[in-house]
Amino acid sequence: MVDFRSDNVASVSPEILAAMLRANAGTASAYGDDEVSEKLNDRFSELFETKVAVFPISTGTAANALSLSALTPPYGAIYCHKSAHIHNSEAGATELLTGGAKLLALDGDGFRLQASTLAEAIPTAGIGVKNRSQPAAVSVTQATEFGTVYRLDELDAIGAVARASGLKFHMDGARFANALAALGCSPAAATWRAGIDVLSFGCSKNGGLNADAIVVFNHEITEDLAFRIRRAGHTWSKMRFPAAQLLAYVNGDLYLRSARRANELAVNLAAKLREIRGVRLVAPVEANELFLELSETSIDHLARGGILFLRRGPRLIRLVCRFDGTEDDIDRFVLALKQCA
Amino acid sequence: MVDFRSDNVASVSPEILAAMLRANAGTASAYGDDEVSEKLNDRFSELFETKVAVFPISTGTAANALSLSALTPPYGAIYCHKSAHIHNSEAGATELLTGGAKLLALDGDGFRLQASTLAEAIPTAGIGVKNRSQPAAVSVTQATEFGTVYRLDELDAIGAVARASGLKFHMDGARFANALAALGCSPAAATWRAGIDVLSFGCSKNGGLNADAIVVFNHEITEDLAFRIRRAGHTWSKMRFPAAQLLAYVNGDLYLRSARRANELAVNLAAKLREIRGVRLVAPVEANELFLELSETSIDHLARGGILFLRRGPRLIRLVCRFDGTEDDIDRFVLALKQCA
Amino acid sequence: MVDFRSDNVASVSPEILAAMLRANAGTASAYGDDEVSEKLNDRFSELFETKVAVFPISTGTAANALSLSALTPPYGAIYCHKSAHIHNSEAGATELLTGGAKLLALDGDGFRLQASTLAEAIPTAGIGVKNRSQPAAVSVTQATEFGTVYRLDELDAIGAVARASGLKFHMDGARFANALAALGCSPAAATWRAGIDVLSFGCSKNGGLNADAIVVFNHEITEDLAFRIRRAGHTWSKMRFPAAQLLAYVNGDLYLRSARRANELAVNLAAKLREIRGVRLVAPVEANELFLELSETSIDHLARGGILFLRRGPRLIRLVCRFDGTEDDIDRFVLALKQCA
Amino acid sequence: MVDFRSDNVASVSPEILAAMLRANAGTASAYGDDEVSEKLNDRFSELFETKVAVFPISTGTAANALSLSALTPPYGAIYCHKSAHIHNSEAGATELLTGGAKLLALDGDGFRLQASTLAEAIPTAGIGVKNRSQPAAVSVTQATEFGTVYRLDELDAIGAVARASGLKFHMDGARFANALAALGCSPAAATWRAGIDVLSFGCSKNGGLNADAIVVFNHEITEDLAFRIRRAGHTWSKMRFPAAQLLAYVNGDLYLRSARRANELAVNLAAKLREIRGVRLVAPVEANELFLELSETSIDHLARGGILFLRRGPRLIRLVCRFDGTEDDIDRFVLALKQCA
Repeated sequence: MVDFRSDNVASVSPEILAAMLRANAGTASAYGDDEVSEKLNDRFSELFETKVAVFPISTGTAANALSLSALTPPYGAIYCHKSAHIHNSEAGATELLTGGAKLLALDGDGFRLQASTLAEAIPTAGIGVKNRSQPAAVSVTQATEFGTVYRLDELDAIGAVARASGLKFHMDGARFANALAALGCSPAAATWRAGIDVLSFGCSKNGGLNADAIVVFNHEITEDLAFRIRRAGHTWSKMRFPAAQLLAYVNGDLYLRSARRANELAVNLAAKLREIRGVRLVAPVEANELFLELSETSIDHLARGGILFLRRGPRLIRLVCRFDGTEDDIDRFVLALKQCA
Repeated sequence: MVDFRSDNVASVSPEILAAMLRANAGTASAYGDDEVSEKLNDRFSELFETKVAVFPISTGTAANALSLSALTPPYGAIYCHKSAHIHNSEAGATELLTGGAKLLALDGDGFRLQASTLAEAIPTAGIGVKNRSQPAAVSVTQATEFGTVYRLDELDAIGAVARASGLKFHMDGARFANALAALGCSPAAATWRAGIDVLSFGCSKNGGLNADAIVVFNHEITEDLAFRIRRAGHTWSKMRFPAAQLLAYVNGDLYLRSARRANELAVNLAAKLREIRGVRLVAPVEANELFLELSETSIDHLARGGILFLRRGPRLIRLVCRFDGTEDDIDRFVLALKQCA
Repeated sequence: MVDFRSDNVASVSPEILAAMLRANAGTASAYGDDEVSEKLNDRFSELFETKVAVFPISTGTAANALSLSALTPPYGAIYCHKSAHIHNSEAGATELLTGGAKLLALDGDGFRLQASTLAEAIPTAGIGVKNRSQPAAVSVTQATEFGTVYRLDELDAIGAVARASGLKFHMDGARFANALAALGCSPAAATWRAGIDVLSFGCSKNGGLNADAIVVFNHEITEDLAFRIRRAGHTWSKMRFPAAQLLAYVNGDLYLRSARRANELAVNLAAKLREIRGVRLVAPVEANELFLELSETSIDHLARGGILFLRRGPRLIRLVCRFDGTEDDIDRFVLALKQCA
Repeated sequence: MVDFRSDNVASVSPEILAAMLRANAGTASAYGDDEVSEKLNDRFSELFETKVAVFPISTGTAANALSLSALTPPYGAIYCHKSAHIHNSEAGATELLTGGAKLLALDGDGFRLQASTLAEAIPTAGIGVKNRSQPAAVSVTQATEFGTVYRLDELDAIGAVARASGLKFHMDGARFANALAALGCSPAAATWRAGIDVLSFGCSKNGGLNADAIVVFNHEITEDLAFRIRRAGHTWSKMRFPAAQLLAYVNGDLYLRSARRANELAVNLAAKLREIRGVRLVAPVEANELFLELSETSIDHLARGGILFLRRGPRLIRLVCRFDGTEDDIDRFVLALKQCA
């Protein structure tokens, strides 16, 4: 089965499974006081070259909404791009867990929020005016919902605007590894050095087994966040298992190797698609996602041929390459598409 | 290490791990549309002898608070025993996820809520009176926080009182298997036949790997609940893994066999403790938990001797027996305690 | 002082004050069980030619947010025009009181939401899709934030679209009387006959003393709404006083007479402004508000000359005519403006 | 009609009405920027002998819940007496407006919370423990729901316990004037000198027209609270009218004179009741409320005789004396009661 639906449909990395099995020896303290979990903060602090606090979380939606809940008062507003997952695809989780804060969706080329757009929006928001939701944070998705990647200078610029206005800065990194692989920079450069206060660190889409994490750079929010996570029912009792996953995920740069593999497949697929008439890539392929405009006839033909993908609108489909995908998948997709033409 | 701290410190059952590994073949639809997850409703409907809807959930806290969120308006009130986990040990999760409903904690012998207490409380609640929180549900913990078990006639009686007043009925079954093993009745008799609308079905404490479930008997709430779960970030993307766990957990009555083993250890330990002077069991041992009153000297002696347990107050400790515990643990505990005396 | 800042700066109608004074005789039941309050439902049912429930409310913000809280689940979405007061100027009250529902702001000519725009938006919202906020209601502002008025056929069309998709229909009638005066139709035609479920019925801006009302046409929500209002601290104890105001407000069509007076002043002012070079009316003057584009020099000149008005953006000011305004105010404004030119 | 139901059934003081009428001259800025409202902070700062911020609020329920919302995180807990109005009679307003904080109701003699009870409760609350609601504030009702009054030394002691544990201190002063009249001390001594951070300052029950106030002593919360009040729809547009009421209420100590009158009536009534056999006062009469135990026959007789009062349980009635009550009311009540005996 050729399956390009999502990175969510992928298997679990063998290294991650093996670490979970190893963690299953004997009894262990619950709720994160065990030996495995206690390594998390140190290991991720090393990875990010600064002291961080790490909270394993079962879903990206929870990681985002809980992170944001520690960055805004309930009467606050959070800027994001209009295509942001938190705005369109999380069922109102941010509104729930912040106590009703407001997402302010902005336009932006390349499915990215531009610092200049943010800088223009803030002065019209009515800071200090009592009948206006108060700007409290900005959130970016890295890589974006359309597979593009913020460059470091773009992140730095957004961070500078945020800082100048007293806004906190959140990154939805459901595909952080894919973005990092594309950027080729350090995790530090891609996050706190650009001013990120808190990161939703994706793992599930890139070989994890339902384990993402919140990585906190701004220590002022850590204690508050810990209470919010527990209260939302997002503190696992047998914490050693997600902790083991997250450790295995970054061990020996597994996360980067897996992401590079997925990105590479996407680049290869894109190259082949560009040679086919009637196919248009809607966005540059910078990480592991491709968005194609095709005729409805072609889309139907692909679907009937057993190719799995998601429709994202009329004449628009999404293809996601996975760490466990193959060149063969690509060839079969390209072949099927050529047969339509 | 002799570890009686909690059933949360236990390992994962081999059968459950094996099922997870099997689920890791190939790609699978996300968010519950995969083949494994799609078996859940049918398998649990068979188990409960009625049509149910099953939602895998990462923690018992989330299972409880989300279940209750579908049973009460935000201005509602939920009756529970004053020792209930939802009231004392879930960080206000119910208040968060219900939008601010109120827990009304009642007294009750044996750490159980009595139907008569509930029947007396309801008429004083001011049903229809606009400045009073409106009774909407009752929640029982089975087995209770102190290891006692509601008998079927007690559940039936509470269900009848609830029904007569239009209240919904929730069971926090974090240790449902242990209670069922103690009762020796069918899952149906212990739940919907007594009027339960929705059950928090524990698995993590009894051999699962961070997978509990909400089991819905009252179909009026299923759709609403599905949205609430997603919005709280409690819908896993790779649902096949928790689904595989839950299926393995009930396959061949593994859940009951594991619970019986834990209960048996508790009974054996209790029998031996009753023969030791200066030791008092605070509650009857009906499931897998024991609460002991001991001198502070004895408690210190045990702790220094490397015995792991939790303090629950001055002179009060809790011991929890696990499905993966041993008779040897018991003997070592008894020996250590005798040495204090 | 020539004061065009808002209808909120107006005095209280003598008839309304007199009614409050009359209500102050002897003791009276609290929370709406008094003789004056008990007349409200009947009187407004007569006015609207259908059975309604009326809840006096201290602010329009509360009237809107509470009305909406009874129309949407917490995971719901509410469509409105992008200029809507509930979206921009109520500090997130709707998000708070609905438990985190989402406002979906749509474009629309004339500062009005078009039925066709709504009809196009709904199918893209993902009804039934669990990770999307679920469309639950549509809200229109009558008259709009820019002083334009929905025609009856426009309301009917929106109501039809809403009904076809199972959405509830709310009207923010902070300036309902001004709109009704402009339309020249019955209150019934402008509300429930177009499908309105619940109306925020403004009074404070048109001669009331901090008394607006929620008028409920859809009886399914009345009981739920009553609890929500009380819980939000919006049920006055001495209800007879706001009730007396609202009765006086509709008695002998005072509300319409006051609104007609304000609208007439606005029309007269608009006519005179159209004769002045360099002045542009941004929106048609259909109720009691005018929005003018002027040079910054002119704006400064007016402000220095003691004319009171609100700035609404660069080169943009708002003028609001009041029931207690005068032709003299208009003449003085026009004179001042001519002096700038 | 002899009416002892509540101080909510009272008329409005002539001085307060007159001030509202005076405030109705000309136009005035909305939302508190007018000349009358701007006097509030200074006038109340003078009254309380310290700099305060004053927010007029339409109900006591809102004043309480909003005050508390600025004192606790959403995962916080608030201690109160088990008879507290916020716990039993405000429809869950505190739970709504705090985002789901928990009220922890404690026992206490004389319907008052004792400092020692609070001091014992705090260490068992699990401060810093992530699955426990975190103690954030304590709230006292002055005068209490049963008409008793906290002495200054009692308030000081509670304040000291609160301060020692980092808890904030709120006073529900729905009948603050009655308590102050009973204590005979300064407003300062009864509030911030005892450590009160924020006071719900009642006026409606003592001659106001639906105008209470929040008085803030702890300036750290003022800005946050201002946003919360606006967002809850509790910021009046025509603020000059409630402001005028509050100024008139404290002008020339009207509030104290009214409260003394009501208290005096209560004392006189109590004295006469003590001479009647079969009548028991449930609580000492320290302010303007009396709670009587009577036979059901007597209660029925009184009700049939046109005496108005509230039942508070089997054989228990409440009588409230008002600033506008009369000695004649008392005599008629006593006469009616003697006729039963």
